[in-house]
Amino acid sequence: MSKDSAAQSGEERLIARYFAPLAKHPGAFGLADDAAAIAPPAGCDLVLKTDGIVGGVHFFPDDPPDTVGKKALRVNLSDLAAKGAKPLGFLLTLALPEEIGDAWLAPFARGLGADAQAFGCPLLGGDTDRTGGPITISITALGAVPQGKMVRRAGAKAGDRVVVTGTIGDAALGLLLRRDTSTARRWGLTPDKRSSLEARYLVPEPRTAIADILRAHASAAMDVSDGLAGDLGKLCRVSGVAAEIVVARVPLSDGVRAALAREPALIETILTGGDDYEVVACVPAGKVETLRQQASAAGVAVTEIGAVTAGQGEARFLESNGRPLVFRRPSFSHF
Amino acid sequence: MSKDSAAQSGEERLIARYFAPLAKHPGAFGLADDAAAIAPPAGCDLVLKTDGIVGGVHFFPDDPPDTVGKKALRVNLSDLAAKGAKPLGFLLTLALPEEIGDAWLAPFARGLGADAQAFGCPLLGGDTDRTGGPITISITALGAVPQGKMVRRAGAKAGDRVVVTGTIGDAALGLLLRRDTSTARRWGLTPDKRSSLEARYLVPEPRTAIADILRAHASAAMDVSDGLAGDLGKLCRVSGVAAEIVVARVPLSDGVRAALAREPALIETILTGGDDYEVVACVPAGKVETLRQQASAAGVAVTEIGAVTAGQGEARFLESNGRPLVFRRPSFSHF
Repeated sequence: MSKDSAAQSGEERLIARYFAPLAKHPGAFGLADDAAAIAPPAGCDLVLKTDGIVGGVHFFPDDPPDTVGKKALRVNLSDLAAKGAKPLGFLLTLALPEEIGDAWLAPFARGLGADAQAFGCPLLGGDTDRTGGPITISITALGAVPQGKMVRRAGAKAGDRVVVTGTIGDAALGLLLRRDTSTARRWGLTPDKRSSLEARYLVPEPRTAIADILRAHASAAMDVSDGLAGDLGKLCRVSGVAAEIVVARVPLSDGVRAALAREPALIETILTGGDDYEVVACVPAGKVETLRQQASAAGVAVTEIGAVTAGQGEARFLESNGRPLVFRRPSFSHF
Repeated sequence: MSKDSAAQSGEERLIARYFAPLAKHPGAFGLADDAAAIAPPAGCDLVLKTDGIVGGVHFFPDDPPDTVGKKALRVNLSDLAAKGAKPLGFLLTLALPEEIGDAWLAPFARGLGADAQAFGCPLLGGDTDRTGGPITISITALGAVPQGKMVRRAGAKAGDRVVVTGTIGDAALGLLLRRDTSTARRWGLTPDKRSSLEARYLVPEPRTAIADILRAHASAAMDVSDGLAGDLGKLCRVSGVAAEIVVARVPLSDGVRAALAREPALIETILTGGDDYEVVACVPAGKVETLRQQASAAGVAVTEIGAVTAGQGEARFLESNGRPLVFRRPSFSHF
């Protein structure tokens, strides 16, 4: 050990070992300064998003640390994608309980670093503290969009079609499976269906590949993190419109279909449970097919599930008999 | 209550009541979107800093909530100032235990909002979660500097003078006073000296007023958050120099002088205790007087305390007999 490193604090060593290798942006100064300096691309707005995840709330303390690192970054990348933004980099605040050491930090940093690389979103800076509570990870992600072109929640218009990426409800059922191992038997799930749902809870798939396509075609969009029903309601309220969704059109994975066949009441969990990290977007009718084809070419399935109507913020989910579903708890909320 | 607000989640109501009023930047969209969009000033780099504070670690659970709000923002503003950056705005992640409700949130948001206004640093976005642990507040602050002009930790040169703003050690002694009420008697402090030290722990004073002056004159700078000795050591290591500080020149407040007269051993706490949120800077000898005068005109005292020398990262603190102080624990570190 050199004289220099002998004088380093424990925090400096931790940063040098686990996080400096993730700080590949030149403006991160290898995490050897107090702050980062970045010049945003010419003609671009910065898009800024911050999202925290807390042990025991957003992930299980015994979740594999590499998946925790991935999820912490991906929940923010999901927002950037829905806003039509290209990732630029991120800042990380960690609050760690005493018992967290190298055995957790090494795989956490490895998972986080793999995704920072995969999504072109390097670490720009951070802060590491002790806490008397659970592991708390807060990430601020920065992206870029051409000036004035961020895809907003406001902007949906009556007549627009409502589309959604991927499949809905996997993570919400994945969470139930994680909580109670008898659930898989009750739902008659094969091991591969079960692990696929659990994987969707552990590591969401941000729709970064279609950020440009959303910017080109969507009137409004947001990522689905607190349940499709509640999040679409939020979008409708901000846009001053309503929406009618045909429940039978909501795209479901094989695992979710299998569970739903056994327990039809699961439809509420599927539509309101959250953690989907898919994109819901409102798109002028004439642009839906182009968006769908371009997204498909980028590897992302997009499904039309309903329409925007005149109204005051209500998102109605219609069953095949034409009656609206009534949810006991329309949106996930911590408060 | 309107139909719209009846459909809002608890989190939406909390944001609308306490935090939307702080989101005065047009790119924050009144916190009614998933992300903020800002166009940085032309020709400027963004300076990015993230810092978290945790209940029971960085503040006492019974600290007045308005001071907690102020401290959370100010520890970040302090970094921006030391880097020569003008504040642009901030993002906030809150993790709140169940027992935190309006009685805490209202004054917290009031204190935070007052400082956002006073320092021209509006809220751009945020995230609010529940936690099974203590209150955890993470802020990412954004500032602007002319391109390539961020004041770095690297850049100090042998021959530079070392200067520091304000006074050192107040917050470290303020923390001891907060922990043990008998301390004030032992140190023979008058009530006003005691409350002045405690106030410096509760609400630091970021040196925003001299950001431009530091950019014009300093070779290197950083804010002093983990103790003058340790932080100057970090600056020296990154700059590849050493520093010699004359302990007798380190500026001390009346309260710190009074305590030190009773307990000379407190000098270690004063120089290593942290939470000062002053700026330590290295300045070419010919520029020190100009910097000092300009800072004084901006209301900030700057004191020359030593010099940069050739060396490998060591910051030595010399007593009046010329011998270096040996610290048991040179820098505050959580790890």
